[in-house]
Amino acid sequence: MLNGNPDIKIFAGSSGVAFAKKMCAYLGADLGASEVIHFSDGNIFIRIKETVRDKDVYVVLPIGLDPNNELVELLFWMDSFKRASASSVTAIIPYFGYAKGDKKDEPRVSIRARVCADCLETAGADRVITMDLHSAQVQGFFKIPVDHLLSLPILCEYIKGMDIMEDLVVVSPDAGFAKTARKYADYLKLPVAIGDKTRTGHDENAHILELIGDVEGKNCMIVDDFSISGGTLIDVAHMLKARGAKRIVSVLGHIMLREKGVRAINESPIEAVISTDSVENPFIVGQNKFQTVSVAPLFAEAVYRIHERESVSTLFSTVPQKLKDDLKGSCGK
Amino acid sequence: MLNGNPDIKIFAGSSGVAFAKKMCAYLGADLGASEVIHFSDGNIFIRIKETVRDKDVYVVLPIGLDPNNELVELLFWMDSFKRASASSVTAIIPYFGYAKGDKKDEPRVSIRARVCADCLETAGADRVITMDLHSAQVQGFFKIPVDHLLSLPILCEYIKGMDIMEDLVVVSPDAGFAKTARKYADYLKLPVAIGDKTRTGHDENAHILELIGDVEGKNCMIVDDFSISGGTLIDVAHMLKARGAKRIVSVLGHIMLREKGVRAINESPIEAVISTDSVENPFIVGQNKFQTVSVAPLFAEAVYRIHERESVSTLFSTVPQKLKDDLKGSCGK
Amino acid sequence: MLNGNPDIKIFAGSSGVAFAKKMCAYLGADLGASEVIHFSDGNIFIRIKETVRDKDVYVVLPIGLDPNNELVELLFWMDSFKRASASSVTAIIPYFGYAKGDKKDEPRVSIRARVCADCLETAGADRVITMDLHSAQVQGFFKIPVDHLLSLPILCEYIKGMDIMEDLVVVSPDAGFAKTARKYADYLKLPVAIGDKTRTGHDENAHILELIGDVEGKNCMIVDDFSISGGTLIDVAHMLKARGAKRIVSVLGHIMLREKGVRAINESPIEAVISTDSVENPFIVGQNKFQTVSVAPLFAEAVYRIHERESVSTLFSTVPQKLKDDLKGSCGK
Amino acid sequence: MLNGNPDIKIFAGSSGVAFAKKMCAYLGADLGASEVIHFSDGNIFIRIKETVRDKDVYVVLPIGLDPNNELVELLFWMDSFKRASASSVTAIIPYFGYAKGDKKDEPRVSIRARVCADCLETAGADRVITMDLHSAQVQGFFKIPVDHLLSLPILCEYIKGMDIMEDLVVVSPDAGFAKTARKYADYLKLPVAIGDKTRTGHDENAHILELIGDVEGKNCMIVDDFSISGGTLIDVAHMLKARGAKRIVSVLGHIMLREKGVRAINESPIEAVISTDSVENPFIVGQNKFQTVSVAPLFAEAVYRIHERESVSTLFSTVPQKLKDDLKGSCGK
Amino acid sequence: MLNGNPDIKIFAGSSGVAFAKKMCAYLGADLGASEVIHFSDGNIFIRIKETVRDKDVYVVLPIGLDPNNELVELLFWMDSFKRASASSVTAIIPYFGYAKGDKKDEPRVSIRARVCADCLETAGADRVITMDLHSAQVQGFFKIPVDHLLSLPILCEYIKGMDIMEDLVVVSPDAGFAKTARKYADYLKLPVAIGDKTRTGHDENAHILELIGDVEGKNCMIVDDFSISGGTLIDVAHMLKARGAKRIVSVLGHIMLREKGVRAINESPIEAVISTDSVENPFIVGQNKFQTVSVAPLFAEAVYRIHERESVSTLFSTVPQKLKDDLKGSCGK
Amino acid sequence: MLNGNPDIKIFAGSSGVAFAKKMCAYLGADLGASEVIHFSDGNIFIRIKETVRDKDVYVVLPIGLDPNNELVELLFWMDSFKRASASSVTAIIPYFGYAKGDKKDEPRVSIRARVCADCLETAGADRVITMDLHSAQVQGFFKIPVDHLLSLPILCEYIKGMDIMEDLVVVSPDAGFAKTARKYADYLKLPVAIGDKTRTGHDENAHILELIGDVEGKNCMIVDDFSISGGTLIDVAHMLKARGAKRIVSVLGHIMLREKGVRAINESPIEAVISTDSVENPFIVGQNKFQTVSVAPLFAEAVYRIHERESVSTLFSTVPQKLKDDLKGSCGK
Repeated sequence: MLNGNPDIKIFAGSSGVAFAKKMCAYLGADLGASEVIHFSDGNIFIRIKETVRDKDVYVVLPIGLDPNNELVELLFWMDSFKRASASSVTAIIPYFGYAKGDKKDEPRVSIRARVCADCLETAGADRVITMDLHSAQVQGFFKIPVDHLLSLPILCEYIKGMDIMEDLVVVSPDAGFAKTARKYADYLKLPVAIGDKTRTGHDENAHILELIGDVEGKNCMIVDDFSISGGTLIDVAHMLKARGAKRIVSVLGHIMLREKGVRAINESPIEAVISTDSVENPFIVGQNKFQTVSVAPLFAEAVYRIHERESVSTLFSTVPQKLKDDLKGSCGK
Repeated sequence: MLNGNPDIKIFAGSSGVAFAKKMCAYLGADLGASEVIHFSDGNIFIRIKETVRDKDVYVVLPIGLDPNNELVELLFWMDSFKRASASSVTAIIPYFGYAKGDKKDEPRVSIRARVCADCLETAGADRVITMDLHSAQVQGFFKIPVDHLLSLPILCEYIKGMDIMEDLVVVSPDAGFAKTARKYADYLKLPVAIGDKTRTGHDENAHILELIGDVEGKNCMIVDDFSISGGTLIDVAHMLKARGAKRIVSVLGHIMLREKGVRAINESPIEAVISTDSVENPFIVGQNKFQTVSVAPLFAEAVYRIHERESVSTLFSTVPQKLKDDLKGSCGK
Repeated sequence: MLNGNPDIKIFAGSSGVAFAKKMCAYLGADLGASEVIHFSDGNIFIRIKETVRDKDVYVVLPIGLDPNNELVELLFWMDSFKRASASSVTAIIPYFGYAKGDKKDEPRVSIRARVCADCLETAGADRVITMDLHSAQVQGFFKIPVDHLLSLPILCEYIKGMDIMEDLVVVSPDAGFAKTARKYADYLKLPVAIGDKTRTGHDENAHILELIGDVEGKNCMIVDDFSISGGTLIDVAHMLKARGAKRIVSVLGHIMLREKGVRAINESPIEAVISTDSVENPFIVGQNKFQTVSVAPLFAEAVYRIHERESVSTLFSTVPQKLKDDLKGSCGK
Repeated sequence: MLNGNPDIKIFAGSSGVAFAKKMCAYLGADLGASEVIHFSDGNIFIRIKETVRDKDVYVVLPIGLDPNNELVELLFWMDSFKRASASSVTAIIPYFGYAKGDKKDEPRVSIRARVCADCLETAGADRVITMDLHSAQVQGFFKIPVDHLLSLPILCEYIKGMDIMEDLVVVSPDAGFAKTARKYADYLKLPVAIGDKTRTGHDENAHILELIGDVEGKNCMIVDDFSISGGTLIDVAHMLKARGAKRIVSVLGHIMLREKGVRAINESPIEAVISTDSVENPFIVGQNKFQTVSVAPLFAEAVYRIHERESVSTLFSTVPQKLKDDLKGSCGK
Repeated sequence: MLNGNPDIKIFAGSSGVAFAKKMCAYLGADLGASEVIHFSDGNIFIRIKETVRDKDVYVVLPIGLDPNNELVELLFWMDSFKRASASSVTAIIPYFGYAKGDKKDEPRVSIRARVCADCLETAGADRVITMDLHSAQVQGFFKIPVDHLLSLPILCEYIKGMDIMEDLVVVSPDAGFAKTARKYADYLKLPVAIGDKTRTGHDENAHILELIGDVEGKNCMIVDDFSISGGTLIDVAHMLKARGAKRIVSVLGHIMLREKGVRAINESPIEAVISTDSVENPFIVGQNKFQTVSVAPLFAEAVYRIHERESVSTLFSTVPQKLKDDLKGSCGK
Repeated sequence: MLNGNPDIKIFAGSSGVAFAKKMCAYLGADLGASEVIHFSDGNIFIRIKETVRDKDVYVVLPIGLDPNNELVELLFWMDSFKRASASSVTAIIPYFGYAKGDKKDEPRVSIRARVCADCLETAGADRVITMDLHSAQVQGFFKIPVDHLLSLPILCEYIKGMDIMEDLVVVSPDAGFAKTARKYADYLKLPVAIGDKTRTGHDENAHILELIGDVEGKNCMIVDDFSISGGTLIDVAHMLKARGAKRIVSVLGHIMLREKGVRAINESPIEAVISTDSVENPFIVGQNKFQTVSVAPLFAEAVYRIHERESVSTLFSTVPQKLKDDLKGSCGK
């Protein structure tokens, strides 16, 4: 905990309460007083219960397991703050689920991430802090500044403390994620392997999962930005086993699995899934295979630096000592 | 049915399918081909399956029983059409639920109807057609043209055919709705009565329901723009009964009751609730007391006139003969 | 007077000079140096005669008795301040006359309040402080924060000191204003009566003025937000007399009467009209029946709190002790 | 008159009625049905009384003798048309008085012409047609297309028919207007003279009116874009007389003189003032020295070409034969 | 050539003349008359020499070999058309060089593609037609519709006619381009190989070029979206040779090589570089190894379909027969 | 040098380095760390190398000798700062070359200065500081505040120290610049003469250079805002010589001459050209006739005052003592 920061004012949206409280604990700040009502007709109503006049306010709300309710709630938060004369409004969106809708890869579809960005700006957002966007380009959908945090350093620090590190290989599940997988490998000084679907000859449909790199007799860590059904992870795990891999874990930025996905992982060769608390996922609570590393301190540190007019950018590649220490104490299975 | 209008292109959002089909039937137009997918992570994805290049398109989607999912879906529809080079995009919102959020009557709250209006415009809406807004001022939250239809004439035409007309009094449940109640009374050439909560003296909390106007031995028609729980209607009904009213019906622009509300009405002195199909309400299906008058032909007629560059404004006060005829045939319990 | 606030910089538009000076007196601030020239061709020209670079400035100008000249002048004030690099610009509009133009209740008319709001924002306004808007929804026509003050508490405090309080009934001239009338009644712990035009039967034009509530042998206080011709007030007063009312006064947020209206009031059963100085009305000067309560201290207190980053919202429902004391000394006939 | 154009829809603002009627006569079009009400509280209210749905509409209203009322009225016209679903809205502003406010030549003043431009666009204008802007740069204050007509060719055609043409010299009253004066001279194949205030030596205040060019024994035509008081014209006229000029006339784009200015001209050596009807000036009616050339046909021709998708630009430098013929018949004193 | 389309109006920016002429030839349309002047002080000035009032206009200008001059010229084109009252303005940008600036992958840098998109929209663009964007997300930087054409089908059709097809393998130079490489392979029913830089163990800097897939004894076609220096292509070519590849060609969407790059290719094992004419590259003129396939007919076909309100989307995946036929005749080395 | 101002953060664009360094020297501030890369494909890339979070930053870049590259670079600077969360961004544009494009004096051309203004605002500029705009109206093309400095006082102070002052006449090369020429004359208490092209009679093309004012036996100082080719200056100089002028110098706000223009001046009767360093002009380096007065201290003083929230406006007409002293020491040939 830092010395108490009464000036930093963090509010919690419906599904951001636990995350916001962790941030407040780190910052020594009180959570902003507010009330969110979900009326019986489905309408959302927000009441901010303390003055925010000329304050820099932050509201925590992932666009995660209930994305449309969360997005609309976020829009109303922005407007509430603006009309209450807040000086600036920052949306803290630990997981921005609609970032996946970042292109028009078929005719007559929406670029949904741009719609979300435009609406957030229209409703009054002055800045966004988010993490592990599906593609870096999504930052460019916003005109306002976006602080784009990465879970990689903090996840790596956590992994360093695991007993699987010896003879470990970082595995990207496909060519598209290879670049990020290599960043994991660089941070942990490990080799990398890339899975990919490919074809041997002229038969159009015969795809096989291939792998660049050797995993025989090695431990494997499959990395990805998020998983919804667990399907890809499990397919890759089976392939790795077939090629002689020893133990297999998976590391994810965001964990979006629901009941069915959790069950599938439980029945798979993957022995552990390490992810962050960017969404408060009730489906993994009490599940042995699932470990969560909190990134709330990372977001809190970013807010602290913004508040102190310090650079946030070093947070993108290294973990402050303070967070490393916390990690040893507070996280784990 | 009008002569087929292949040029009018109407699409249906998730909860607007039945309504849109009724509009198409009236217009002799085919429903636009599209697909709306609700992914397992909660994300919505829309695919328009025919060219809309340089067309004037319309999409039907109330912001009703599932308002946040519906609002977000509507935003994506707007963007899909714009990026597909539609010439103009009209959002047909038979019920605009967030219109209730039209003022800042306590500190630090959002004016949610304005947020919705701004986001719809940002996402690409060129025009809105809606009905029975909670307050007329909501039209001013939009910069784009809004065609604000009224259910009153068509509901009145329906009521004219009911056996309760004799000795009928129009009852406004409170002073705020008195102006609209009087419009019902004027259309039907009936007297009006206004219920209201008031206090007799200095005791701050002793509110009683009062009534201006005489209902003894008369039939009563309680009118309101919408009902969520049915509570107010039932309270007024009991009060009317206490003052000697005979039969009691209720007429609503929008019917938002769910299971509990429907049950409460069933157990009340109200013998019938007449409303429109502005939301497709599954809770009233098969319920004897509930009668629905379709306003889809009204919306269709508005679209037809927009398409033909005719004035829409006469629709605000009178019902075209064509609709009256349809009413006799197709509506009813 | 507060301790001098050299940092608060208030300027006065053409018809806001007296009001602005009262605000400055309350705040212990000097009026900003400026010059407004109305050229012989009708053009308005504003010259700000002291630096406002990076200052939070306020300009006082009602949109009142000369609304179009005032509106255009206000637009030029906004632009002058912005181009002079003011940090923020607040338009203090004690009476916002075009708020009446808040809906499109017939085809092909403008929503004039929205036009005013948009133009003020376009010209550079960052915030508006106003009072007793015709409808609360007008706040939603602005994207910028609006501090919407109410004259009710300060008027009630003034009325408390009048000799008419005994056996007083608050009368709303129509159903539409009933909600506000009840707020007066609640503040003063008085009963309420509601006047309304209604019909007894099938004859379309036979409107009679009715009343919910008992006024026989009672004093009456007719409340309304503003009066232009005095007509409604006088009609209601006659009706109250016919029902046995004793003394009658009227309380208005804004007083827009001109010569003819003042004369009509003078000849009516209304013995006093209490209103605020939101517009500087020359027609009531020296008229015995007219009493003015200054709301300049209320606006000044709001500015003070904005300046000190305090909540303004408590001002909406209660009168600070300081203002109550001032009221006893400085106001009255 | 052209063949009737039922499709061209021209409306008239309060002070644009005569001008709009002349345009309609030229175009064979009916004036759009509308009503402008100036309420007793000063508010303006516009009612468009025929459908404009999907039509290209034009409204005529100078920002002239009553500029602030006219500007505000114009803003409400724009919004009325937009909300009535007009396809495009063109503001025809024969004289745009605030064009004079085109720069910030002292600290802390507004650039009023830009404010007007921004507000017109905000309120919904799609295009502006105007004439003889004070500076050509004002066109750049608009984002929307501006058709900037010039009165010069039509005034020159009129002058050609006057008996003063022989030995005539075009006189610019100052160096700033020299460029336009030379265009008059070029059109009429006449010499030019430029008046100017200058100093002979080191005395700071001793300005004298000088002249480049010879006027002795010549007739003089002083040209300017507008005159408010007549002062400059009269000063120059006296100076010309002192240098031996014979007869003197003045030619103006816009005539803004009121009673006092008209009287001053009447008592001056200027024998005639020729100007356009860009503002409907009641002060010159029945005054012998004042001659008006109608530019309504010029504006009508521009509208006609816009409507027919033809180029408007040739109108900037030449007068169509049709207008020349009309000129001979309908104009004159 | 299609039947002449006098209504389609295509203009050519400085470096788009040849491309625009090819488009006009395909469409049977005349090139729009215009003049672009580059003044001696570096300023650009555009003069459109025919009326565009209410026309849908297109201007061709890549942001290519001289990107900043081209971007600024494009902005002025947009504004010229808008102020000349064009109905809609489409920027045809065959190569959009700043699309590479699509993310903020280090602190405090600009997302340059978003800046370009915003400025084009601000200057008046209504639509963009472009090809082979560096990332598909760039489309989302625009609010206006973007028709994103792909050179892949037309390049593949060309390649089908080459004698290298037998035993050909498509090679992606890195994992990031693998997805597109596979589309080439799918279109041509060929196998794919992916080159990638990787590390074998713990040494941080020892990168080696690896390859998934077998190329021994095979012909290779290295595909990429563009090449500036030729470096990557040549490195991959050497690696392929080392692994036993037979003949090697390269296929590029855009060819940005200048003298030095052309020389390097000439000295490399690559026997041919096939690319499009999206930029008019003078450095490859007369160079034997370089073959250009014109995509002007593809763009022309897109414009034709836009003009005829037909769907453009089928162009994204297939080549119309008409273009195939043209390809046989007009293209080739 | 002022006392060091670590808080003022000035950055230098490519062609603004020398100017920015002089500003920093005056202010005692360090130049902001940054890097501008011009890639081989012509693309510009900017990297800001220190945190600017919540700082007021300034970047110096004329739109001068390489205007399009400079404009685009400036746009990227704006965006870089905004996305890096700078509090405000000021573009210091000592010479704004596109200000010449301030009107639409022929059909279908762009108003280029407005395009530049709009794009700068779109990219994120909060304020502009510039000097000697071609017309004062250009300020109105911006919505953001523009501090428009004038070189006149500082140039006059420099001239006062020259030996040509005795019997000196200020000469305006044409009527359009007469107003500014008179300001020079007023500041230096000198007479003014105005050159102009005029015609004597009916021959359309026979223009001769005329002059108001007497120059025989006098020294002449031809003033202008900028010169690109030197042509006008040289023509006027010859005319002055023909009328008996003694020595001739020229004074310019901005010096845009390139090799050819410099050579022409060298061969002309003009003995010296005094200008500012608003563009860093390599063509005049080492040329005897050319003298440069630095206006960097003027801009620095403006920044200082903005930073200290003082008025900048006095700088428009007088030179602070500090700058006068510096002028004596640091300037000269």
